[in-house]
Amino acid sequence: MTYVGPAGLGSAPPAAAGAGQEIYDLAERLFPICRSITGDGVRKTLDVLSGHIDLRRHEVPTGTQVFDWTIPQEWNIRSARIAAPDGRTIVDFADSNLHVVNYSVPFKGTLPLNELRQHIHTLPEQPEVIPYRTNYYTPTWGFCMAHDRLLEMTDGLYQVEIDAELKDGSLTYGEYLHRGQTEREFLLSAHICHPSLANDNCSGLALLATLARTLSTRKTKYSYRFLFAPGTIGALTWLSRNENRIQLIDHGLVVSCVGDAGCPAYKRSRRGDAFIDRAMAHLLGGRPGAKLIDFSPYGYDERQYCSPGFNLPVGMFQRSVHGTFPEYHTSADNLSFIAPEYLEDSLAVLMDLIDVVEGDWTPLNLFPKGEPQLGRRGLYSALGGQKASGITSMSLLWVLNLADGQHSILSMAERSGLPFKELAAAARLLSEHGLLAAIL
Amino acid sequence: MTYVGPAGLGSAPPAAAGAGQEIYDLAERLFPICRSITGDGVRKTLDVLSGHIDLRRHEVPTGTQVFDWTIPQEWNIRSARIAAPDGRTIVDFADSNLHVVNYSVPFKGTLPLNELRQHIHTLPEQPEVIPYRTNYYTPTWGFCMAHDRLLEMTDGLYQVEIDAELKDGSLTYGEYLHRGQTEREFLLSAHICHPSLANDNCSGLALLATLARTLSTRKTKYSYRFLFAPGTIGALTWLSRNENRIQLIDHGLVVSCVGDAGCPAYKRSRRGDAFIDRAMAHLLGGRPGAKLIDFSPYGYDERQYCSPGFNLPVGMFQRSVHGTFPEYHTSADNLSFIAPEYLEDSLAVLMDLIDVVEGDWTPLNLFPKGEPQLGRRGLYSALGGQKASGITSMSLLWVLNLADGQHSILSMAERSGLPFKELAAAARLLSEHGLLAAIL
Amino acid sequence: MTYVGPAGLGSAPPAAAGAGQEIYDLAERLFPICRSITGDGVRKTLDVLSGHIDLRRHEVPTGTQVFDWTIPQEWNIRSARIAAPDGRTIVDFADSNLHVVNYSVPFKGTLPLNELRQHIHTLPEQPEVIPYRTNYYTPTWGFCMAHDRLLEMTDGLYQVEIDAELKDGSLTYGEYLHRGQTEREFLLSAHICHPSLANDNCSGLALLATLARTLSTRKTKYSYRFLFAPGTIGALTWLSRNENRIQLIDHGLVVSCVGDAGCPAYKRSRRGDAFIDRAMAHLLGGRPGAKLIDFSPYGYDERQYCSPGFNLPVGMFQRSVHGTFPEYHTSADNLSFIAPEYLEDSLAVLMDLIDVVEGDWTPLNLFPKGEPQLGRRGLYSALGGQKASGITSMSLLWVLNLADGQHSILSMAERSGLPFKELAAAARLLSEHGLLAAIL
Repeated sequence: MTYVGPAGLGSAPPAAAGAGQEIYDLAERLFPICRSITGDGVRKTLDVLSGHIDLRRHEVPTGTQVFDWTIPQEWNIRSARIAAPDGRTIVDFADSNLHVVNYSVPFKGTLPLNELRQHIHTLPEQPEVIPYRTNYYTPTWGFCMAHDRLLEMTDGLYQVEIDAELKDGSLTYGEYLHRGQTEREFLLSAHICHPSLANDNCSGLALLATLARTLSTRKTKYSYRFLFAPGTIGALTWLSRNENRIQLIDHGLVVSCVGDAGCPAYKRSRRGDAFIDRAMAHLLGGRPGAKLIDFSPYGYDERQYCSPGFNLPVGMFQRSVHGTFPEYHTSADNLSFIAPEYLEDSLAVLMDLIDVVEGDWTPLNLFPKGEPQLGRRGLYSALGGQKASGITSMSLLWVLNLADGQHSILSMAERSGLPFKELAAAARLLSEHGLLAAIL
Repeated sequence: MTYVGPAGLGSAPPAAAGAGQEIYDLAERLFPICRSITGDGVRKTLDVLSGHIDLRRHEVPTGTQVFDWTIPQEWNIRSARIAAPDGRTIVDFADSNLHVVNYSVPFKGTLPLNELRQHIHTLPEQPEVIPYRTNYYTPTWGFCMAHDRLLEMTDGLYQVEIDAELKDGSLTYGEYLHRGQTEREFLLSAHICHPSLANDNCSGLALLATLARTLSTRKTKYSYRFLFAPGTIGALTWLSRNENRIQLIDHGLVVSCVGDAGCPAYKRSRRGDAFIDRAMAHLLGGRPGAKLIDFSPYGYDERQYCSPGFNLPVGMFQRSVHGTFPEYHTSADNLSFIAPEYLEDSLAVLMDLIDVVEGDWTPLNLFPKGEPQLGRRGLYSALGGQKASGITSMSLLWVLNLADGQHSILSMAERSGLPFKELAAAARLLSEHGLLAAIL
Repeated sequence: MTYVGPAGLGSAPPAAAGAGQEIYDLAERLFPICRSITGDGVRKTLDVLSGHIDLRRHEVPTGTQVFDWTIPQEWNIRSARIAAPDGRTIVDFADSNLHVVNYSVPFKGTLPLNELRQHIHTLPEQPEVIPYRTNYYTPTWGFCMAHDRLLEMTDGLYQVEIDAELKDGSLTYGEYLHRGQTEREFLLSAHICHPSLANDNCSGLALLATLARTLSTRKTKYSYRFLFAPGTIGALTWLSRNENRIQLIDHGLVVSCVGDAGCPAYKRSRRGDAFIDRAMAHLLGGRPGAKLIDFSPYGYDERQYCSPGFNLPVGMFQRSVHGTFPEYHTSADNLSFIAPEYLEDSLAVLMDLIDVVEGDWTPLNLFPKGEPQLGRRGLYSALGGQKASGITSMSLLWVLNLADGQHSILSMAERSGLPFKELAAAARLLSEHGLLAAIL
């Protein structure tokens, strides 16, 4: 049992009005950049985020061993295009960075259509959108385009150029640490490797940067670590360079796809019953449309955090579940697919989560035999006036009844079905009246 | 594991035919008395109950400290009325003791209507009934009346008199102990503080007195303590004076609102899985309309018994759940709201519960390897003739199969889904044939 | 934790095409024999089975004490008939061995109809079928017949003869042991005492004999013991003669009624969570119409194996649940009630079960920090080619994620919802690539 008292630590501030627009604006700035798992796109993205928070940037050289993996050569791309037999440019990287298979090797040549087609990826069932494809670990090249446009291509020789380079360099990631009263950490992680895809994951990057800035002025119990790293290899790199600190992580959350119109969804950590799993189940449990999903080893970087060698209490938060919406990993995941109101709602969920993480404690009823006389202390009459703060007599009675030193406020919320917020306020009020002490 | 054998102790006798009418008649005698948390109304009520059982009466002086509470001054009331400007009496305590806010301070004066209205309580949504209100711990006075009658009152000066007194005295409660073979106790508790409300709780008082009288001639394993005490302060008083005996309580039940037409409802103890919780779940589980309700720290005196400092295995039994029926705490909770048949059914549930409490034991199969040969012992052929006693071959086989020393009869009932009664009879029969021994 | 590796032991061979017909043919040969709990019918049945597997036969003398039971005298019957007053034979054992109450004492005499009727059993609600009745432990006699035929019988004197004998002899049972790499056993048991009833249990006898022959050429981890013994007294006899070996039984299954058109049904062992209970729940869990039934102490010889003195992990497998189909224990349970396709499906379920039992092991991920790089090892690209073997990337990821030394393949199947077969193949592939080791 940890010695954590109720005093001093206010709850996290409510999301500022207009926070949704602020997050959206930031996502809009991130959107055009061509990111990948390495390269200048990641650096430019961190530059933008650094305008909001004091990011620490890390460069890890090509060839560095990261557990079972090796940091690859750095990839950068200047331009790419396909010119038709008549010389007209029909596919241009400048129009959309999705047009080039991410990590394509440089290429320049003239090919007949049937040969070129083997390098072209389309989605026949969504013929108007450009798919997003990557090819990090094999030296090939390719283009992605709308299927409708492919069908318009006639036989003949096509001029193709991908002006990219793959050479020794480094993998880049950014980190922001908000120091709290203790070294125990809450890790929040968003992948920074996807190019122009708005929901996946400009939304997550912008949301976390905004949350980080909001927390930066707050006094908190936990330290909050924000990680902006390329998917898989970036998370692995961070883990491998921080193995000695990993046991400090008490809570963790991977954040992605948080700007669309879907309802909030939480995917449990591998543990399934970690504090964050319980807290998110409590927060989303009663919300219509919200989803609670059991862990599976497929998804985002929770795969790495929850690998058996770490088994960290890291869940994943999103709205529409990745892979289940038609815009996923296509050019339709653009800025019109996300909206300020959904980003704001996602922020509010995270703020509520932080309230639970910060505000949970284990009270001990100092008058455990029978109910203490609340009326004498003005706690019944006080209730009318306290209604605004959400305290009801049921919350006072539940807190007193369960304050046996075995129940934290979250446990009380789970058993009573009352909101954490209300029970926490009731516990604070009872504390102020000397009815509760904190368990150490 | 306790050393409890099957022998000797028959099950509790079935409720006598006409027991419902007997309980109703007793409730009818209790109904007119003006009870409160102290005063002569409680004493008169105990006088009536003493006609049925040999009650021990306790008087605890004003000012006595009871955990966080103090026994208040004793309240008694002789009369109270409101006279209209024309001298006509329009509200009279003699008509209904609900007309006066319970524990009102004495008052005599003349008031204009607008001032008087601040002391009048009505139920606008149930305009024909008188609400029941109390005000134990602040020195004010008030009247309760039908809202329709209030609307008829015209401006003018009203003469008001409450001839009551609040002075040092005592809090009164009654107790009846049926001694069983052991000192382990079953506590049955009913609040005695409500004035003319039939279901809440003349019904509970009358039911427990009748149950106590029924048990008084029985040889039982457990001792049964019946407590008739004012709500909250009375239960707390009893707890504070019996702290050294509290650990003897193996089962407990608060009884109230047991005479109305609703189906039986059991509210679990705070523990949730106490023996009584399991027994009542078994008894009511298959009964259409019956309700099993999780503990919450609101209700009757289970709030005190289940406070964290005691956490006793005390549940609550009622029919319609308090606070959910429109007659609750109004003059509509009168003798026409309860009926002998419902009281009789409530008694039957408690008798069944006592059968389980008394009749549970842990048999050990003395022929545990394979099935013993029942046919040779006439236990198959006996079955036809035994059908009247409810023993089936399934009950014999279940008892033999689970009689590994880890399962009591109640556990067997839970696992097999067969009635406790039938399994207990089967175990008795198998015992008589030397196939089972009792675990100590 | 047992030291069990993945290597070497292939899964059990798939049921040979046409296995269903083979089982049916065997059941057809067993069908005409008049079996009982003792006597030559059992011996003839074992003779037929010995044509398939190298059975060991046991004879246990009349009078031998078997726990609470005694081996009865041996019963054999040559003929039986009822002749009408006009001399015409109206009931003849030669037509159906169900006509005589099994274990009837010898009788010869002339009776008026009203007296004879007390010895005749019919099913008025199924007037065209002959019921199956037994009377092992009381010295009476009786006939069974179609109710319609009974109604045709007119008053008069009937000549009755049962040419049977009851004398000291022995109880006979057969046993086949397939020795595996360890002495840990899987017990498969079928009752051999029912006369001409096809589903109950010629089907079970024929299925187990075929399964035994199939296994006989396989190298297995477990030893498989096949027991063909009369119901109740036979199982008890085997248990009493093998008490010292009983703790070697890790899994067990009683098999009966496995040839009808019903869906597979598994009845859990008394333990409820034994490995076999979990394996069968996994195998049948997703199959439409399949039934998982909690243990109850009624049924076949699982009653004895699961008696409290043994509490073995023995479940029961059947298709239509005994006692629930109208053909049960009547002459309608004949060879047209069972069919090769259902017998083949039953065999397939048992083969799948043996695959789980043999194929379960606990892998340890040797690269537990993050995911190992599958692409570099060709395990992603390999997937296309491996599809035929049922390995998907989800199965690879689940195995890696849960290979923490706490999860066997079956546990992984339970948590992931993926088929055992697929996870086992994935684990084998990962093992071959050096990513997994076996926990000992």
